[in-house]
Amino acid sequence: MLQGHQTWVFSSRPVIISTAAVGGPFEARGPLAEDFDLLHGDLWLGQDSYEKAEKKMLEEACEIAIKKAGLKKQDIQFFLCGDLLNQIISSGFAARTLGAPFLGLYGACSTSMESLALGSLIVDSRSGNNVVCGTVSHNAAAEKQYRYPTEYGAQKPPTAQWTVTGAGVALLSSGGEGPRVVAATIGRVVDMGVSDPFNMGGAMAPAAADTITAHFRDLGVSPGEYDLIATGDLGRVGFEIAADLLKKHGIEIPGGRFTDCGLIIYGENQRQEALAGGSGCGCSAVVTYGHILNRMKKGELKKVLIVATGALLSPLSYQQKESIPCIAHAVSIEYGP
Amino acid sequence: MLQGHQTWVFSSRPVIISTAAVGGPFEARGPLAEDFDLLHGDLWLGQDSYEKAEKKMLEEACEIAIKKAGLKKQDIQFFLCGDLLNQIISSGFAARTLGAPFLGLYGACSTSMESLALGSLIVDSRSGNNVVCGTVSHNAAAEKQYRYPTEYGAQKPPTAQWTVTGAGVALLSSGGEGPRVVAATIGRVVDMGVSDPFNMGGAMAPAAADTITAHFRDLGVSPGEYDLIATGDLGRVGFEIAADLLKKHGIEIPGGRFTDCGLIIYGENQRQEALAGGSGCGCSAVVTYGHILNRMKKGELKKVLIVATGALLSPLSYQQKESIPCIAHAVSIEYGP
Repeated sequence: MLQGHQTWVFSSRPVIISTAAVGGPFEARGPLAEDFDLLHGDLWLGQDSYEKAEKKMLEEACEIAIKKAGLKKQDIQFFLCGDLLNQIISSGFAARTLGAPFLGLYGACSTSMESLALGSLIVDSRSGNNVVCGTVSHNAAAEKQYRYPTEYGAQKPPTAQWTVTGAGVALLSSGGEGPRVVAATIGRVVDMGVSDPFNMGGAMAPAAADTITAHFRDLGVSPGEYDLIATGDLGRVGFEIAADLLKKHGIEIPGGRFTDCGLIIYGENQRQEALAGGSGCGCSAVVTYGHILNRMKKGELKKVLIVATGALLSPLSYQQKESIPCIAHAVSIEYGP
Repeated sequence: MLQGHQTWVFSSRPVIISTAAVGGPFEARGPLAEDFDLLHGDLWLGQDSYEKAEKKMLEEACEIAIKKAGLKKQDIQFFLCGDLLNQIISSGFAARTLGAPFLGLYGACSTSMESLALGSLIVDSRSGNNVVCGTVSHNAAAEKQYRYPTEYGAQKPPTAQWTVTGAGVALLSSGGEGPRVVAATIGRVVDMGVSDPFNMGGAMAPAAADTITAHFRDLGVSPGEYDLIATGDLGRVGFEIAADLLKKHGIEIPGGRFTDCGLIIYGENQRQEALAGGSGCGCSAVVTYGHILNRMKKGELKKVLIVATGALLSPLSYQQKESIPCIAHAVSIEYGP
C-alpha cells in the first residue's frame, strides 16, 4: 500500500452472505419499511429500558443474519460492533449473547462502515471467516443520553435530525453467494469548527467530502464508477454542503447517483418529526443492509459506495465548548457477474 | 485459520519501532517511574478540565513515539485508539490533532491490546505501515465519569482499584529494529454474574483465563513458551482468581513468570490509595510500552504475552442491575535474535 493512501483493496472480495435490518415503529411508517427483516410496533421490545430494547434489536439482527446464512452462533468467528451508548453497552451485551470473539468499535454513526471495513480486512487476510459486522441505535435511548428526556418535549431547530431506531448487520464470508466488498477508505478526523449538536449533518459534511475525495484519489477512479454513492446520515442540510464541497474538489457525481441514507429512510409525511432527516448508527446500517443491498439483488445497482459519517462529540465535550470532530469511512460493494 | 480458533499469527512479525509512556503524579511516585518517557507533576497538564488533560497526555505520547522513530506526523498511515471516556473523546480529539486516518476502538481496559492486535493485522496484511496504536486513561476524569466527585471523598472497599493516569502508544512498522508482534488472541465476552463495580478485577479474571487458555490451545504451546505473562489490570483480588482458574484449566504458569500490570505499577507505599492495584486503559499500556519493553531491550525477557482485560460495563448498565461483561485480548511480543 502506498504511503499517504488510506484505502484498502480487498483482492479476495469478501462476500456478504447475509444481512439483517431490524427497525422500530417510526421506521415502519417510512418508505423503506418493506426492506426490513423485522419491524417492531413499539420502542420497548418488551424490555424494561430503552437500552435493553436497543441491545435486543441488535441481538435479533445477529440472529436473523446468522439464520438466513444457514449458520449457527458457533460458526461465527468474530463479531465487530459498536453503538452510540456510553461504553457501547449494547454491543458488549450482544457480544455476550453471541459468544464469538469480539472487537468493540466506536466511530459514532460511521461505525457501520468501520465494522464492515475491518471485517473485510479480517476475511481478506484469511484471519477469520464468518464475521458478523454491525451496529445499532435507538431513538429514545439516544435522546435520553445526548439530549433532554423526550417527555420534556424540547423544541429542535430544523437542522436537527432524528436518530433511527434500527440494527443492521452483515455476515461476511470468504466464499458463497452475495454482494462482495471491493475496497474500504478509512477516514481522517475533520473538524471545521462547527459546535452545534443540532446541526451534525453540517458538521459531518466536510468529513464525507474528504473521504470520498481520498477514495477516488487512492483508487484512481471517477464518480462514474458507482451506480450509487450514499452518505450515512448527513440529512438535508449536510448533504447539500457535501455536494457543494465535492464540486469544489472537482468531483461531480452524476444526477440521481448521489444520495444520503438519512434522506431516504423517512418520507415527506414524517418530515415534521424527522426534521432534516435520519441519523444514528443504525441509519446507514439498516438502509445499506436492507434497501440498498435489496436493490443490488434486484439488479438495479451493480456497484455502490457507502460513506458512513460520524460525529465524534460527547455531551461533555459540547458542554466544554469543544467543536465537533467528524469522520467518514467508505466501503465499496459490488454485486453481479 | 481454523474454524473455532481466535488467534492471529502474524507471519511478517510487525515491528514495534518505538513506544511512549506518559504518566501522572501518582505514577511518578511508583516503582516504574524510570520507565516513563514523560511524567507530569500535576493532574491538570495546564488544561482547564481533566478530560482535556487526558487528551493532551495521549497527544504527547503520540508525539514522543513518532519523534523517537525519527518520523513525522504525516508518516503515520493509521491511528488505532480508544479510551474510557464516553464516546472516546480523548481518542477522537487526539486523532484530529494527529491527522491520520483513524479507527476508533472501545474495549475498556483491553483497548491497549485490541489496538495492538488490529494494528498488527493491518501491517502484517500489508494494508498499512507506520501505524500508531494506543490508549489513555486519567484517574480524575474516570472517577468523575464512573463514580463520585473525588472531592466527596467516598470510601472504597479494598477490592477497588486505582485508575492509572497514563497514555501508552506503540508505533508499528513492517520493518526496522525493535520488539516484534508474533500473534494475537481476540477474546470472547465472559460474564460470571459479578455486578460489583468495586470488584472489577474479580469480574475480569474469568475473561483473562478464557483468553489465555484459548491462546495456548490455538497455538499448541505451553506457558513455558513465555518468559512473562502479564494480565492488564486484575489487581490483587482478580489476579489470584485468574491464577486459580488457570490451574483448574490445567495451566500452571511457572513461578515468577506470571504477573499483572496493575500489581507492579504501584509500590507498597502507595497501597493505601491504590487499594487492590492499578486499573484503567492506561495501566497495561504504560506498563507494557514502558517497563516490560524496556526489560526486553535489556535482554531480561525474550518473549512475553500481554493479556489486557476490560470490563464492558457502564454506570447506566450497573444502575440497571446488569452484571459486568468482561473481555481480554492477548498479544505476544518477541525480542532478540
